[in-house]
Amino acid sequence: MKYPTAGFIVIGNEVLSGRTREGNLQTLAQKLSTLGIEVRETRIVLDLEPHIIDCIRELSSKYSYVFTSGGIGPTHDDITAAAVAKAFNTELYEDPAAREMLLSHYGQENLTDERLKMAQVPRGSRLIENPVSKAPGFWLNNVLVMAGVPKIFEALVDSALPFLEGGIPVASGTLVVQIGESLIAGIMSDVEANFSQLTVGSYPYFRAGQHGTSIVTRSRNEKDVETAMETLTQRLEYVGYRVENQGIQLPK
Amino acid sequence: MKYPTAGFIVIGNEVLSGRTREGNLQTLAQKLSTLGIEVRETRIVLDLEPHIIDCIRELSSKYSYVFTSGGIGPTHDDITAAAVAKAFNTELYEDPAAREMLLSHYGQENLTDERLKMAQVPRGSRLIENPVSKAPGFWLNNVLVMAGVPKIFEALVDSALPFLEGGIPVASGTLVVQIGESLIAGIMSDVEANFSQLTVGSYPYFRAGQHGTSIVTRSRNEKDVETAMETLTQRLEYVGYRVENQGIQLPK
Repeated sequence: MKYPTAGFIVIGNEVLSGRTREGNLQTLAQKLSTLGIEVRETRIVLDLEPHIIDCIRELSSKYSYVFTSGGIGPTHDDITAAAVAKAFNTELYEDPAAREMLLSHYGQENLTDERLKMAQVPRGSRLIENPVSKAPGFWLNNVLVMAGVPKIFEALVDSALPFLEGGIPVASGTLVVQIGESLIAGIMSDVEANFSQLTVGSYPYFRAGQHGTSIVTRSRNEKDVETAMETLTQRLEYVGYRVENQGIQLPK
Repeated sequence: MKYPTAGFIVIGNEVLSGRTREGNLQTLAQKLSTLGIEVRETRIVLDLEPHIIDCIRELSSKYSYVFTSGGIGPTHDDITAAAVAKAFNTELYEDPAAREMLLSHYGQENLTDERLKMAQVPRGSRLIENPVSKAPGFWLNNVLVMAGVPKIFEALVDSALPFLEGGIPVASGTLVVQIGESLIAGIMSDVEANFSQLTVGSYPYFRAGQHGTSIVTRSRNEKDVETAMETLTQRLEYVGYRVENQGIQLPK
């Protein structure tokens, strides 16, 4: 059985230079997880057309969906729409519905040429509605193009979500032990090895002078998650560790 | 003239699933910028050996340096060292100096096999000192391998920094105008076009009910940054906008 997958491309010099901290991946991953779509790779690239084109072509052939963030505003450094058009050997045109959205927002006298640039999308695209600032995102083949401003990015993802084909969401269960991960490494790998479609992730933390580990068990089969958590708990308690069960979560 | 470049690979299911928000890129980019080394690409990949191997091979052939974050702890899901060894067709071995570091930290009786896993590095590596939790990073060919825990990642980058070959740092100057970017798009692209090695970035913001734009001018030639900022200011003031000059910064 095939599960839907996603790649994510963040376009922006300001992220790679360290000026801005990337946060849209977390938003996207959490929202897609509610549909059972797994983000399998993310690339952060410069505002350079050949880089963007290569990246779009490569990821769109590898994953069910590709999402992009950034570079669809009105200025000279906003080159994502042109790059997506070239990646799919098509051209930009002014979408009448996109123009209407901008017109209703800015009014005729303030609808400058620069703002109208945001109505230019690759031929064959469908628009993705933007309730925050009106300038739409767009969707061409399996590529969904979003603005980078976090509030707008999130709103565009929400607009697209109902149209995505989902799969079975991954359930995740968390156990917490107040012990460093190296002391329980064998138990975790043993339990993981019992299942074919389940991962046991080990996430050490250090808080208030105390080492601890979050053990995160993930699978599309919720029953397996439950079984693995029970086995882990038994084995950890058997060797004398106290286990805090934080329960199983389905993405919502 | 060639400037040193870097690629960055973040290894971790927990980042792609949205459980953890990536923050090491910002740390790395800011520190490398003090040496004039530019991060030109970042990839976030799953804890899957073939993905990591491909990514290391590809980026290490494209950039002066490749940094990795994550997957070098003591548990079964820590597979970065093995993947780096395979990427360069070498093998893991227990580095005696790394063993000493762990021994001095844990003591003989607590130096379990799991912890000793953190002394396994690819043959030919040099160690990168870890003042926080002792388990070292390592450096093979042009690939520098770091832990993902932010405090440890930062400490390892600091340890490696004096050994990197730098270039000329990029100076950046910031102007702020209380106007949406679309109204000044033409001015920014005109000014950028006057220079061959300078970028003008446009970063819109919305605060307290007011649209504004940060205009960030970047170049390795500080004089060009100064000239571009003067020209931008003159042209913006000429059409009636108030410009706040936040000055030129060299990374430090």
